[in-house]
Amino acid sequence: MRTHQLVLEWIEKQLSSGELTLGGRLPGERAMAEQLQVSRTSVREAVRILEAMGVVRAGVGSGKDAGTIVIAEPGSALGSTLRLHVATRHLPVADIVETRVLLESWAVERAHAGVPELAEASTLLDHMDQAPDPITFLALDARFHVALAQSAGNAVVSAMMASLRGAIENYAGELTGNLPDWDATCARLRAEHRAILAAVNANDGGAAAELVAAHIRGFYAEAGVGRSTEE
Amino acid sequence: MRTHQLVLEWIEKQLSSGELTLGGRLPGERAMAEQLQVSRTSVREAVRILEAMGVVRAGVGSGKDAGTIVIAEPGSALGSTLRLHVATRHLPVADIVETRVLLESWAVERAHAGVPELAEASTLLDHMDQAPDPITFLALDARFHVALAQSAGNAVVSAMMASLRGAIENYAGELTGNLPDWDATCARLRAEHRAILAAVNANDGGAAAELVAAHIRGFYAEAGVGRSTEE
Repeated sequence: MRTHQLVLEWIEKQLSSGELTLGGRLPGERAMAEQLQVSRTSVREAVRILEAMGVVRAGVGSGKDAGTIVIAEPGSALGSTLRLHVATRHLPVADIVETRVLLESWAVERAHAGVPELAEASTLLDHMDQAPDPITFLALDARFHVALAQSAGNAVVSAMMASLRGAIENYAGELTGNLPDWDATCARLRAEHRAILAAVNANDGGAAAELVAAHIRGFYAEAGVGRSTEE
Repeated sequence: MRTHQLVLEWIEKQLSSGELTLGGRLPGERAMAEQLQVSRTSVREAVRILEAMGVVRAGVGSGKDAGTIVIAEPGSALGSTLRLHVATRHLPVADIVETRVLLESWAVERAHAGVPELAEASTLLDHMDQAPDPITFLALDARFHVALAQSAGNAVVSAMMASLRGAIENYAGELTGNLPDWDATCARLRAEHRAILAAVNANDGGAAAELVAAHIRGFYAEAGVGRSTEE
């Protein structure tokens, strides 16, 4: 095992045992290096990895706010990982689409009117009405779907859906070039989003699930026709 | 943006554009440092992060096998990330359990008899019949469920399920201490596993989905009674 992995293991044990908790502070670089008998470079590499995983935020500033803090941002971290793997073409777009259908129809079926994520989803739809170009629209679109999925309140499903956000933006952006008429598609997508959100807000989970599944598959079918699933 | 992130961005662009592909080799540490005008330390930090994400395998050896190779192991990488987040107690066990029910019942409904993952699942059940202790049993158990989920052939669902493996092993191990009679539970779990696999092999996806959902929830209900969902 390489030395930075020793440091990772030690920190994971501290977290599991509860000696290190959310909002808590890692020991300083030098202190960890001395305690674990490794180089400060190895400690720094381990901290960088934990940062990339969304487990810590590395220290900036000085005084009592300095130091590396334990945080909990699994979604963004899993997102970077998945986005990189989509970039390697290892994860086919068709599989992402079906996973979205699975996670999102499950989530809207369980969402309850009144949770803050649905208010956020509604605000995002208003912004999309004003979006000046497809790229801005699709970035808001991906955020809308993540907010929908989060409205079910399951932290694991939320993290998984957040992890797909970058990949969704990428494939939707790439596929947009295949559309015969962006304005027509955009108008349709906006109407469908409103209908999905209305069903969720009316606590009609069954209808919301059917609408969101048709919406996700519909865009992919329209924009993805004739494309290889590897792209 | 810190310098190691510049290196990460550059590598992601190389992957997205196809200039760097699966099995391909990253430029050497010095070459990347010179091209991007950053320190070799920053390059090394970026490579460590990509390693932790399962995107590259860092160079060992020399000659034509030396260097850092692009690989595709999203499952294990996502797994480390999720396991660390479970360790921070940010992801409640009840949410993992419901996510498993979602992913696994979806997968067994779509699995087709004859795929290699089902043969692997069967071998794992044989090993579980011989498992000398609960820890060995539960490690094989988690691998059995990952193999089941992979039998549907969706790379994203497979990666997500693989990412839960460590977390499943951990919570199952912790909850086992609550069981009144391990031998009785173990015998029941073994019989349920055989029934699930038999339904999949008979292409009876609907039955397999119901059996796997009842199996996952049943263990949690039996072992998790009275426990906080944070544990």
